[in-house]
Amino acid sequence: MAQTRATSLKDVAQAAGVSVATVSRLLNGTLDLPADTKARIDKAIRDLNYVPNPHARRLSRGRSDTIGLVVPDIANPFFGMLVAAVEEEADRRGLAVSLFATLNRPGRELSYLRLLARNHVDGLVFITNHPDTEELADLINATGKVVVVDEDVQGATVPKLFCDNVQGGRLAGEHFADHGHARVLYVGGPEQMISTERRFTGFRQALSARLGEHLMLTRYCGDYTVEFGRAAARRFLDEGRPATAIFASSDEIAIGMIEVLRTEGVRIPEDVSMIGFDDVGPLHLFAPPLTAIRQPVRAIGSRALSLLLETNWDESPSAPEELIPVEIVVRSSVAPPPNP
Amino acid sequence: MAQTRATSLKDVAQAAGVSVATVSRLLNGTLDLPADTKARIDKAIRDLNYVPNPHARRLSRGRSDTIGLVVPDIANPFFGMLVAAVEEEADRRGLAVSLFATLNRPGRELSYLRLLARNHVDGLVFITNHPDTEELADLINATGKVVVVDEDVQGATVPKLFCDNVQGGRLAGEHFADHGHARVLYVGGPEQMISTERRFTGFRQALSARLGEHLMLTRYCGDYTVEFGRAAARRFLDEGRPATAIFASSDEIAIGMIEVLRTEGVRIPEDVSMIGFDDVGPLHLFAPPLTAIRQPVRAIGSRALSLLLETNWDESPSAPEELIPVEIVVRSSVAPPPNP
Repeated sequence: MAQTRATSLKDVAQAAGVSVATVSRLLNGTLDLPADTKARIDKAIRDLNYVPNPHARRLSRGRSDTIGLVVPDIANPFFGMLVAAVEEEADRRGLAVSLFATLNRPGRELSYLRLLARNHVDGLVFITNHPDTEELADLINATGKVVVVDEDVQGATVPKLFCDNVQGGRLAGEHFADHGHARVLYVGGPEQMISTERRFTGFRQALSARLGEHLMLTRYCGDYTVEFGRAAARRFLDEGRPATAIFASSDEIAIGMIEVLRTEGVRIPEDVSMIGFDDVGPLHLFAPPLTAIRQPVRAIGSRALSLLLETNWDESPSAPEELIPVEIVVRSSVAPPPNP
Repeated sequence: MAQTRATSLKDVAQAAGVSVATVSRLLNGTLDLPADTKARIDKAIRDLNYVPNPHARRLSRGRSDTIGLVVPDIANPFFGMLVAAVEEEADRRGLAVSLFATLNRPGRELSYLRLLARNHVDGLVFITNHPDTEELADLINATGKVVVVDEDVQGATVPKLFCDNVQGGRLAGEHFADHGHARVLYVGGPEQMISTERRFTGFRQALSARLGEHLMLTRYCGDYTVEFGRAAARRFLDEGRPATAIFASSDEIAIGMIEVLRTEGVRIPEDVSMIGFDDVGPLHLFAPPLTAIRQPVRAIGSRALSLLLETNWDESPSAPEELIPVEIVVRSSVAPPPNP
């Protein structure tokens, strides 16, 4: 379909017999129209091959109908699924998503926040994956239309959305206690991250409530990576197996630990029990199928976008935290401790 | 750091005592400079808190230093890993990536191609995941600076990059023949996709060469999804198990098949052997660890970007296909057929 110039919003409006503002608001999703009017506009859009130009709108009107999504690492299936959920929700609402992968570099996070400050996107869903800095929090507060998701940025006074990490730790602790474990290992992400701290808190609270002083709880903290899982398993073995049950608090950590334990002939659950966290990967097909705390990743993704759009940014920030419940998916990796 | 107006390229140039063109070309990576000049410019960038404005550059000069990346489904770990590889290579070259997830909708693919036509990005790495249409090929050819990756768009005369699908099918066929299988099932994606066709071609050629008329080859085609894997396994069982070996040609298909076979008490490899394709997921932890053809996803991702940047777009298109070799990762899911 050859064209000498691109179809403009004005062309569509003329063809449909309505004002430019009407077409624009229909496309923005901010106006309800009678069905026949909508149909005329849709037909004009199709016939004239109109493609909205988000970049021109962005610079001319300060509203871009695009939200930004900052994620640490798109190769991680957890973030992949979360991004997909945000994209689908945005698509439902007629918004575009600009995806920024930070490759875990703080400098990049700061650059992307500044893009928001310049109105290149209307708002930002922000996910960080490393211990936060004061500079990041200050910039988020100065920027404004930001929702912090999955991991906290302390000092940021914007709305925040996390899974209920404390509940997740508690469910794992209770499940181990139910099976008679008293010597337990927690393997977590970086110490300063709230996911690490809160999962441990819930885990410890549940086990202490059940075991009191009989509880022997060990903790290794590192990164949410397969590499750290491997290192943690080697340390567990080197230290003479200080536990009969391991809470491996991400899919990647669990994968790394299982690899090493399997190589060393340590059987799950016969020799040591294990519970994972996230349940994004095909844990049900592992040998054995892994019991895990499941994060409602898709719910978090779509709720993040809703929160961004529903928050009244003119009011003073109250920085409420919204928590999405998790659940334990019981499979075959937890059994009573082996006979001494 | 409060500012009344954003730092411009001109501010940086003045502070560093060079021309605007010099700073711009340094940032674009198209100019080599003496180390002390570079250091002066870097210092000015840091001191003045300069953030490149990709959107303004895009509209004013027709070059945006941004490449577009169109993928079907970001939740799929294969595409997640490929995107990450493209992002890292782009970052090394000082380019930004605009990621467009098409949610598998052809209309979206067409919209994104038109964005390129309007110079919003400098070039496009294009991955489709459904049978192509003539409209798509025409638009790709009209657009120009597009590299087609992973799945073909027939009729598109732009550079193309795929894994060596025929080799992958051949490696699987030979491995089954090595173990004595003559009744074999191929479970593939949509029939019109070249990945499906070529993996089957290599598979069939290797088996025919080894077995001649003793080969009994069945083929189910569907989608590269877990759901289709489950349906294929159910069909396999309903049809009375027409094979002793199954080539499940993606991670998702393999996962779906294993789920159903396991539920039905069919053991791998004792009752039926299986080989997968992709090997992006943690197949090594499955019960049993799955033998699979591994796609070099990261190599494909970084090569896609190189191809986009190295191609001379002024010459007439020759549409060469570049193939990246695959390998077979032998694990524990293939054994001789069960005794009759």
